Amino acid sequence: MINHDKKILIVGLGLIGGSYARSLTKKGFYVTAITRSQSSIDYALSERMIAKGYSYVNEEAVGEADIIVFSLYPKVFSKWIEDYQHLFKPGAIITDVTGVKSCLVYEIQDKLRDDVEFIAAHPMAGREVYGVQNSDDRIFYGANYIVVPTDKNTDHAIKICKDLGILLGFERISTLSPEEHDEMIGFVSQLTHCIAVSLMTCCDNEHLVAYTGDSFRDLTRIARINEDMWSELFMLNKDALIEQMDVFSKEFAAIRDMIKNDETEPLKEKMRLSTKRRALFDKK
Amino acid sequence: MINHDKKILIVGLGLIGGSYARSLTKKGFYVTAITRSQSSIDYALSERMIAKGYSYVNEEAVGEADIIVFSLYPKVFSKWIEDYQHLFKPGAIITDVTGVKSCLVYEIQDKLRDDVEFIAAHPMAGREVYGVQNSDDRIFYGANYIVVPTDKNTDHAIKICKDLGILLGFERISTLSPEEHDEMIGFVSQLTHCIAVSLMTCCDNEHLVAYTGDSFRDLTRIARINEDMWSELFMLNKDALIEQMDVFSKEFAAIRDMIKNDETEPLKEKMRLSTKRRALFDKK
Repeated sequence: MINHDKKILIVGLGLIGGSYARSLTKKGFYVTAITRSQSSIDYALSERMIAKGYSYVNEEAVGEADIIVFSLYPKVFSKWIEDYQHLFKPGAIITDVTGVKSCLVYEIQDKLRDDVEFIAAHPMAGREVYGVQNSDDRIFYGANYIVVPTDKNTDHAIKICKDLGILLGFERISTLSPEEHDEMIGFVSQLTHCIAVSLMTCCDNEHLVAYTGDSFRDLTRIARINEDMWSELFMLNKDALIEQMDVFSKEFAAIRDMIKNDETEPLKEKMRLSTKRRALFDKK
Repeated sequence: MINHDKKILIVGLGLIGGSYARSLTKKGFYVTAITRSQSSIDYALSERMIAKGYSYVNEEAVGEADIIVFSLYPKVFSKWIEDYQHLFKPGAIITDVTGVKSCLVYEIQDKLRDDVEFIAAHPMAGREVYGVQNSDDRIFYGANYIVVPTDKNTDHAIKICKDLGILLGFERISTLSPEEHDEMIGFVSQLTHCIAVSLMTCCDNEHLVAYTGDSFRDLTRIARINEDMWSELFMLNKDALIEQMDVFSKEFAAIRDMIKNDETEPLKEKMRLSTKRRALFDKK
């Protein structure tokens, strides 16, 4: 496990970064934070989520950190590495929580100093609200955590990254290549957000509030969406996402045609398959 | 409000019929039930959800009932009326919980005896499990209840039907025509089930259990689906459902093309609209 003398720096103190900070501070680590907004720092200090915090890139905080977790939008993260990587402590381990990988991981590993290692990770947890004020370390319990190594990563860094997931309380720690990650995330996360948004925008739903049941509420919970973050994630994973959208559209059209053509038995067969597969996803 | 000397008969003691029975018995009404399975009757008696129950059409139970709630599949309900309507008490009020209306309400009103009135209703509540053993009157709290009258209905029957919804604890009682109901239900309920099933069946998702987050779980909760009931409901509401599926598909394709063509600003605009509309659907 990660030694308690390791100093951890969180860069980007929003919902996820804040939840990391809460959890790791509770577990006895020395956690500092750098984030743009002073009010986020003030909140985190008042909640005793961090030992110290800065609304600018504090050289000492970066230089003393053994593990640095980046919880930033992908392009901001990439630029940060360019601008400030000279401040990293030799031997530091860098990790992240970014929702896309292929377009980012190789690029960052290529430009990173040789004496610092970047090991990518994706905690599959979130809420439909944002900001450090909504952070909650319980969102990790029962959730999945994916480590996304490349050929450049050492066993040492991969182990630290996995141990971090265990420390945070994730239920399942898995490993995927950047390409596998992006295909999977295109399906389970990005496609589902595209569906939820389409459901909300495809007709004027306001009058439906009085009639709707839980099905519609469930399918649109994630339709409350941070447009800056998600549009960036979609564009950066465009090829994988479009492929998954097309797979879904084809299946949806097939089910439409079964209904249209009174093909009751094939439709029931789809429903039986759906029921069987969905059973695997029930939380224990 | 409905007088406590009114005798209520539930025909079809499954999840919804059972939840009606639980609720109305708790509220002091004399509730009986007719359902095919003796074990459902035994369960309901052991839970004190009903005063008496029969696994066959008991003439006395039908003949003494002032209000009869049908919780059957649409075609079974229609056939039941043909076979047994001679048993109804003169002046009895018949209502239902059926998920489709245009194809059913006019037909039943046309063939029903003149001294008995059918007023249709749709409680927008359910669970992804079935049977009286899973019945729970709390599913109605905070939910919507829709009364679906035609020109043939009297104010008296409409009031009784609304009062029943209030008694059961529904939060909002609305009125829609059969056609309005079917268009609405095609969108909020049937379309969402088609989407959930398509998501589960469009690729072999079994390996995804280790990676998925809550988004995918939310969008597929209703993918556990009773294939006999839902295929019947889909086919009976085919025109309205196909229309809603096409509206959704068109919007989904538009969002796909925005991603494909890097149209970030229009995509963000969709997300902002989605976020604004979804806020209306948050439960208080």
